Amino acid sequence: MAFKNDLILRAARGEKVERVPVWLMRQAGRILPEYRAIRERLSGFRELVMTPELAAEVTIQPVDILGVDAAIIFSDILVVPEAMGLPYEMVESRGPIFPKTIENDKDIAALLGAEAAHELEYVYEAIRVTKKSLDGRVPLIGFAGAPWTIFAYMIEGQGSKTFSKAKRFLYTEPEKSKQILNKITDATIAYLKGQVAAGADMLQIFDSWASILSPEQYHEFSSVYIERICDELNHMVPLTVFAKGAFSARVPFSKMKCDVIGLDWTMDAVESRKIIGPGKTLQGNLDPCALYQNKNGIELEVKKMLDSFGAQRYIANLGHGLYPDTDRFMVKAFVDAVKEYKV
Amino acid sequence: MAFKNDLILRAARGEKVERVPVWLMRQAGRILPEYRAIRERLSGFRELVMTPELAAEVTIQPVDILGVDAAIIFSDILVVPEAMGLPYEMVESRGPIFPKTIENDKDIAALLGAEAAHELEYVYEAIRVTKKSLDGRVPLIGFAGAPWTIFAYMIEGQGSKTFSKAKRFLYTEPEKSKQILNKITDATIAYLKGQVAAGADMLQIFDSWASILSPEQYHEFSSVYIERICDELNHMVPLTVFAKGAFSARVPFSKMKCDVIGLDWTMDAVESRKIIGPGKTLQGNLDPCALYQNKNGIELEVKKMLDSFGAQRYIANLGHGLYPDTDRFMVKAFVDAVKEYKV
Repeated sequence: MAFKNDLILRAARGEKVERVPVWLMRQAGRILPEYRAIRERLSGFRELVMTPELAAEVTIQPVDILGVDAAIIFSDILVVPEAMGLPYEMVESRGPIFPKTIENDKDIAALLGAEAAHELEYVYEAIRVTKKSLDGRVPLIGFAGAPWTIFAYMIEGQGSKTFSKAKRFLYTEPEKSKQILNKITDATIAYLKGQVAAGADMLQIFDSWASILSPEQYHEFSSVYIERICDELNHMVPLTVFAKGAFSARVPFSKMKCDVIGLDWTMDAVESRKIIGPGKTLQGNLDPCALYQNKNGIELEVKKMLDSFGAQRYIANLGHGLYPDTDRFMVKAFVDAVKEYKV
Repeated sequence: MAFKNDLILRAARGEKVERVPVWLMRQAGRILPEYRAIRERLSGFRELVMTPELAAEVTIQPVDILGVDAAIIFSDILVVPEAMGLPYEMVESRGPIFPKTIENDKDIAALLGAEAAHELEYVYEAIRVTKKSLDGRVPLIGFAGAPWTIFAYMIEGQGSKTFSKAKRFLYTEPEKSKQILNKITDATIAYLKGQVAAGADMLQIFDSWASILSPEQYHEFSSVYIERICDELNHMVPLTVFAKGAFSARVPFSKMKCDVIGLDWTMDAVESRKIIGPGKTLQGNLDPCALYQNKNGIELEVKKMLDSFGAQRYIANLGHGLYPDTDRFMVKAFVDAVKEYKV
């Protein structure tokens, strides 16, 4: 397919770009009144995720309203554990809750692996509808959680500052942990391939809870599974790995078959480039709180960020998802400032 | 004063030790039934903190029961904002809440600076009572929060995953932020000197929310204030700086007038020693979740940790406070394993 704007794909592949591509994690969501208008008509977040036409509509909103260089399919990383057999509820102002978690061997045996991907037809359909509506304006990003992050929710049963229940399981049941992680990895590979088959032009793996593991544990219980995903996908479309807070993971990621490495704002651009080398595109990394400033402040931050990352082998983004109380005009100021930067 | 056991002071000063000293952050607290017995008789956490005889009693419990090489005064970092004029409440299973936060210039002007230290007589008295009861068995550690962490609570009004209200203030009101940080620093210096005057043999600064700032922001809004504290205290007693998650801060800390640098489990021992150099003692860094293992597992972890840190210029500890659901016998196993390690 010919894109009207394929900047992000070229940047991801390391091809020369005439300006820096930009999008934002959580660009579709509460910051847009157009999103809130749709969301308010529905029973909840899950209805939106599971209704392809509506998911497609909110996916495209930031392309129209903010002028970003990519859409990312509106969904949630927790659709995978649900498809594997552990449904979740999204509780307002509290986050996800799993009424059932993994307690014993029978629970592990009951989890679906690669077959779970068949349960996610509604996501593939949302991708197909979005692709049709986008009509080549910008590429569409698909995504999944990293196996460790999904595991953490499946064992913990909810969000947590420390995920100490999930980590207790790693320490006390390392072999069972690996069984579960392998099943999640199988499901994730099949799911990401399904997203590509449906039309996703690029993929991102989110390891949201990377920061709470030691480097050694991260290797043993996260990196190796991400690596298997990278190997299996084998550059079929550009692939981004984003492990929030895992500063030590930059070294192993630099050796994987991924194309882009996402960084948060605690990771310095120049230092990260040195650690990662020239072979990967970097993505990130503005602090979402920087968008609480006025337009002038945001423009200064963007300039500083682009000066330090450089315009090639780089995709501008935040270092975390947009916070819901961000002024949408300041989000637009961020996007515009990247677009106006002279390469 | 002559100590029966001054291992931790010698390790902090870089003197040779015949075995590795050990204590645990949050060693006094819920993991001990003896603590819970006292706590249950009281109206709440604050009554315990503000009653010197009881604070002293729970401070000494882990010395008796766990055999640690130091006591740390039972208190809370939030006594400082309270003394400055912002009282807090400790709400069960939710954490601290400040009914009043800083909203305007009048609120900033009303905050006490160095004079706040006079409001903390109950802590000094707890230190005096503890010192008397300890009778030189082990040294007593005093502590305070780092100015940035205290600021974060004062503006946010409660705990938070992102502290986005506090960070919004940094971004939108940098000069007012510095006014507040300077007042907190003045209060903290006077408070720490007061603790030493009362008998504290060593001090620790906790920067619990260090990890959410970029390296540049951390320098501007945290490091410089910690450095001022280090300069003012000027090695009057050994001083530890512990900034959880702030992997970039190891470089600036290595140049400050502190004696010990605390590390969490995401920071590799060998890499940290290389970054920090030979001039500081390192403290840490076992993952508190590692204590969910059995005795044998804990012994293996301790051996691995001590092998990689080495026995000199090192104080064994966790990389974060003990989690309240930890089995006290496994805490004891941790302490014993350090003590049995052959130097």
